[in-house]
Amino acid sequence: MSIAAHVRDRILVDQLGPHTLLPSERELAELHRVSRMTARQALSLLENEGVVYRRPPRGTFVAEPRVRFHIGSFSEEVSRLGRHPAAKLLWAEHQEPTPSVKLALDLDDGATVHVFHRLRTVDDVPFALETTFLPADLTPGILDLADGGSLWATLRDRYGVDLSRSTAVLESIVLDDSSSAQLNVRPGSAGTLLTRTTFGAGGRRVEFARDVYRADRASFEVSVDLSDRR
Amino acid sequence: MSIAAHVRDRILVDQLGPHTLLPSERELAELHRVSRMTARQALSLLENEGVVYRRPPRGTFVAEPRVRFHIGSFSEEVSRLGRHPAAKLLWAEHQEPTPSVKLALDLDDGATVHVFHRLRTVDDVPFALETTFLPADLTPGILDLADGGSLWATLRDRYGVDLSRSTAVLESIVLDDSSSAQLNVRPGSAGTLLTRTTFGAGGRRVEFARDVYRADRASFEVSVDLSDRR
Repeated sequence: MSIAAHVRDRILVDQLGPHTLLPSERELAELHRVSRMTARQALSLLENEGVVYRRPPRGTFVAEPRVRFHIGSFSEEVSRLGRHPAAKLLWAEHQEPTPSVKLALDLDDGATVHVFHRLRTVDDVPFALETTFLPADLTPGILDLADGGSLWATLRDRYGVDLSRSTAVLESIVLDDSSSAQLNVRPGSAGTLLTRTTFGAGGRRVEFARDVYRADRASFEVSVDLSDRR
Repeated sequence: MSIAAHVRDRILVDQLGPHTLLPSERELAELHRVSRMTARQALSLLENEGVVYRRPPRGTFVAEPRVRFHIGSFSEEVSRLGRHPAAKLLWAEHQEPTPSVKLALDLDDGATVHVFHRLRTVDDVPFALETTFLPADLTPGILDLADGGSLWATLRDRYGVDLSRSTAVLESIVLDDSSSAQLNVRPGSAGTLLTRTTFGAGGRRVEFARDVYRADRASFEVSVDLSDRR
């Protein structure tokens, strides 16, 4: 078994909590009878995976586990986990859609959109930057309602929209300087870009969003039924 | 509209093909009446997203679109897109499971696993490193069968396993030096880690896998039904 796999297993099987100090490079090297360089590479691999973090000279520690999201409402997913979701509104405005937003929401010529740009937090830790586009004719007055809560709940409760389906495309990216700063991570850190489209009853496109998550705190769980495939 | 959004839209709406030369920093700066620094940042953002690539001094070009995977068999997903999947076997062996593999496959004490480590390619371009664990009692002789094709097809056709469900957890990571080299990308590039579990009829766990994709070529599409949620 590789050293990285061994450390990953120890954390999982011994249920080592976040911020637990792990063996040093020297200790790992002795334990596995490898060079310190090899031990260092193993810890570096685990750091890249977000399993551990390093604070030289104090050592290497178990990282906070990533929050495991399903594709859905940020507020609802975080609440489901018993944690506290919030959103800081960075800006909201009424816009002409760009061609790609017009395409994504299947808008008629001349239709406009309401746009929200929000910083999403979990227990006050920055997690994601969301840019959400809603058809303006569907959401009159929504720019004055934004309260940091769930846009899905607002769509359902204030606008009577029955949400039927959501699709998301996930991509791993490198965060640019501005996103890194807003998410409070080092420039060049990994991020996850979710491009989401939400459909109402009858197939109308009611939301298009581009969400940028910091990678070290978020994972996304997906489940697919294979029984009807061959 | 931001410059990055404008360029993203031009590529999408004008359907600019891969490797099309885009306007230079200077041209973008003049067009949008911003500084060259601002134009450079916009191109850098798009490069980080994998939308463009830069080859100084020749310029900035439209990147190959990412292959859009659903969670499923690599071979089947790539074939569905009309492209050519292949796998290079790096090693295959019979192992005692590590504690986390034992847990993931819900194995009895003493049960062993067959492990495949493969480099996955699409049209001969490296896309992913897959490490796949199969219960040995379910897959006698499979180590001698590996032919670079679909393990799911082998499970179904040779071992009569009805696949019922697959779950995956997606995480964005930074590739370590060894994975970067094998996937032919720069060290420190972004990657996507898929941790997958596949279930047979009756809920038996028949496959556990850790797949590392290069981020610049792969995206993952997910669709969820919201009609039964409130």
